[in-house]
Amino acid sequence: MEKLLVKQIYRGSEKYADQVVSISGWIRTLRASKAFGFIEVNDGSFFKNIQVVFEEKLDNFVEISKLPISSSLTIEGTLVVTPDAKQPFELKATKIIVEGMSDTDYPLQKKRHSFEYLRTIAHLRPRSNAFSAVFRVRSLTAFAIHEFFQKRGFVYTHTPIITGSDCEGAGEMFRISTLDFSNIPMDKNKKVDYSQDFFGKETSLTVSGQLAAESFALAFRNVYTFGPTFRAENSNTGRHAAEFWMIEPEIAFADLNDDMKLAEDMMKYIIKYVMENAPEEMEFFNSFVDKGLIERLNGVVNSEFGQVTYTKAVDILMKSGKEFQYPVTWGCDLQTEHERYLTEEVYKKPLFVTDYPKEIKSFYMRVNEDGKTVAAMDLLVPGIGEIIGGSQREERQDILEARMEECGLNKEDYWWYLELRKYGGTKHAGFGLGFERAIMYITGMSNIRDVIPFPRTTGSAEF
Amino acid sequence: MEKLLVKQIYRGSEKYADQVVSISGWIRTLRASKAFGFIEVNDGSFFKNIQVVFEEKLDNFVEISKLPISSSLTIEGTLVVTPDAKQPFELKATKIIVEGMSDTDYPLQKKRHSFEYLRTIAHLRPRSNAFSAVFRVRSLTAFAIHEFFQKRGFVYTHTPIITGSDCEGAGEMFRISTLDFSNIPMDKNKKVDYSQDFFGKETSLTVSGQLAAESFALAFRNVYTFGPTFRAENSNTGRHAAEFWMIEPEIAFADLNDDMKLAEDMMKYIIKYVMENAPEEMEFFNSFVDKGLIERLNGVVNSEFGQVTYTKAVDILMKSGKEFQYPVTWGCDLQTEHERYLTEEVYKKPLFVTDYPKEIKSFYMRVNEDGKTVAAMDLLVPGIGEIIGGSQREERQDILEARMEECGLNKEDYWWYLELRKYGGTKHAGFGLGFERAIMYITGMSNIRDVIPFPRTTGSAEF
Repeated sequence: MEKLLVKQIYRGSEKYADQVVSISGWIRTLRASKAFGFIEVNDGSFFKNIQVVFEEKLDNFVEISKLPISSSLTIEGTLVVTPDAKQPFELKATKIIVEGMSDTDYPLQKKRHSFEYLRTIAHLRPRSNAFSAVFRVRSLTAFAIHEFFQKRGFVYTHTPIITGSDCEGAGEMFRISTLDFSNIPMDKNKKVDYSQDFFGKETSLTVSGQLAAESFALAFRNVYTFGPTFRAENSNTGRHAAEFWMIEPEIAFADLNDDMKLAEDMMKYIIKYVMENAPEEMEFFNSFVDKGLIERLNGVVNSEFGQVTYTKAVDILMKSGKEFQYPVTWGCDLQTEHERYLTEEVYKKPLFVTDYPKEIKSFYMRVNEDGKTVAAMDLLVPGIGEIIGGSQREERQDILEARMEECGLNKEDYWWYLELRKYGGTKHAGFGLGFERAIMYITGMSNIRDVIPFPRTTGSAEF
Repeated sequence: MEKLLVKQIYRGSEKYADQVVSISGWIRTLRASKAFGFIEVNDGSFFKNIQVVFEEKLDNFVEISKLPISSSLTIEGTLVVTPDAKQPFELKATKIIVEGMSDTDYPLQKKRHSFEYLRTIAHLRPRSNAFSAVFRVRSLTAFAIHEFFQKRGFVYTHTPIITGSDCEGAGEMFRISTLDFSNIPMDKNKKVDYSQDFFGKETSLTVSGQLAAESFALAFRNVYTFGPTFRAENSNTGRHAAEFWMIEPEIAFADLNDDMKLAEDMMKYIIKYVMENAPEEMEFFNSFVDKGLIERLNGVVNSEFGQVTYTKAVDILMKSGKEFQYPVTWGCDLQTEHERYLTEEVYKKPLFVTDYPKEIKSFYMRVNEDGKTVAAMDLLVPGIGEIIGGSQREERQDILEARMEECGLNKEDYWWYLELRKYGGTKHAGFGLGFERAIMYITGMSNIRDVIPFPRTTGSAEF
């Protein structure tokens, strides 16, 4: 008798029709009369449940009839196709083994729970419809990203999580230590004596793998990272987490146009992949989370992304006659309200904004001919705003050093990064995609806490 | 004119024969006479170089002739198949653009460098043959692992890196904090006041995602993790790093036999994948790093893994007549010398050792009928020793709680883990594969520092 996943049955029910098979899973619903009963079983391999019919001729009919939901079962039976019923088939049980009986106070009863409540039972919420769908889509999206880059010969690079340098000087970082906090050693100058710490110096959690990825791109031409990054920002919003995953491709012999082409191809690839491989989940999100989601994503896959310079975009915003909370002038950073107006109301599709003022961008971005802007790009998408940020990198050593000085960085700390320019540097570019932002975009979920298995945010590191 | 990666040319040279193409890459070697010259160019997409021929009719012939190695170039030319020469084809340049000239003091000159030296230039070492091969294989292995699990419908789960609990009570952990180290806040009892820290409590870097993965396996049936894990162990060996990546599958409705089957299938899949997708790299390792490597790996793919209980293995070791540094008695943990003897000399193939004494294993492993051993397994492989450790998990809540008490763990800290048994728990199992160990095994590299892009070890967090 073949042991099957529920997904295998849904994807090949003709093959298994009238066959005796075995499945395992958890009870989602159960109703029974004196003579027979129905169980909706979910095994997590598939969004939908499979209906099991059981009759009083089973030895343990009475026991089964009274099982609390979420109990785990193994069921042997015949798969019967039911063309006239709501469900396409059902499993007529010949044997039901109770693997583990649930307590009756199971916190995920059938009634609809708020996402807020479900966060307090993050160990159980993947058993609900919404989170079962979210985390299956998260897995598929991750794989789609790997497949996209591997097919193109990109080298997946694990850049370090623990870093000895405040890479981009970006944001607040988490410090890592094995020192005894109740007795921190001090040196002669009454400063913390990091020489006694595990790495013999101050270390933190990475905020970006980009600089390390650049060193690999200048050996392998095309590389990407996919790993966790960290920000100790004290912002308690639905869009920020202290721990999140990021994808950072880096390509050599490539400029900003190549970079945008890559970002567009990647976004289309992963959206298509998820829509093809998780149609039931996407249908669910479209119906219950974000109406219009599928249409919007289809639009993305089939449109050519727009492109506008920052300077032009500011002009459009200033002339729009629209009242923004933050007024726009050349030189200011674009806010989400501006980004969404551009992508949703002006261009009505994903939009690259390019060539930002250098003052609001990082030191490593390539300075344009005008001396005022840099070869940067942000990808804005309807419903979210910025989802990708990238740039061509400054490959000219003298200009890079001048920019580091302007930004108050210590060149000695970046000796190896500068050497990449010294020994056969070349034009190169890259971008960063926040993985959770991508999942929110693809699923329509609006809080980052609801697309991370066990989220870490200000004041919260539960489970 | 088509822009190509060197790999595309090697894998499809018939298609591009006599075509005009463009490639980019870095000079590995260059020799020139007055009339013509040869450049070996590597673009990182492929292990091998491509030979470029250039002649004095090029405008910049003299400039090109004098270029230092590691300078970056873009070359346009005709691909000429050379059946009688050492290399299968060469690119006759019609145009060579210097993208970035290298300084002449490039530290990776052609002579062979020691791996120790190359660690000091980790930003440049991927441009050497050995590390170019290592990191390409690392990338392919990572993808093979994802593909293996995704094909079987496993859900890739990102378990948290920052953790509020000393999960398994295992090993030394790194603490994470945003407190001011020069002024740590203390509470009334003169203890560190973690309520003022970012997460409002003491937090560390994860040593394993297993417990969180179990919660997902009890929703999705089959899941896996693939992420960084950390150990603050003060061991300065060639096998230990403070930061390393781990793969941890977890399967529900499965016992120890299913677990071993999965581990065996996975190992065979990834080895096969790498041998098929990186034959040039594997040939290189076989010739220059570890003679006999390919034969050994072929043996693994084609053999059925052995299986022996710990009790029987101890018996074999005690009767072997061999003098071990650490004598063997029932109850002791097996050392690498014992493991290697078993797998290399007794069984001569990969070997699962099962059913270890519970005293030397973790609290979550399922206690066997005998009450003395647990349903654990280690996979030992020739040349390395242990590469995988796994177990069936204790699904019986009462026995699990008793084991936690025995191990001195606080049950309250594990409330959610215990609830997994309460609400439809079922037999389940899983294992952990150290990713770097797997890379060492597949490449024959003997120091873990040489399979990690920028390794973190005691006293060292450079780059």
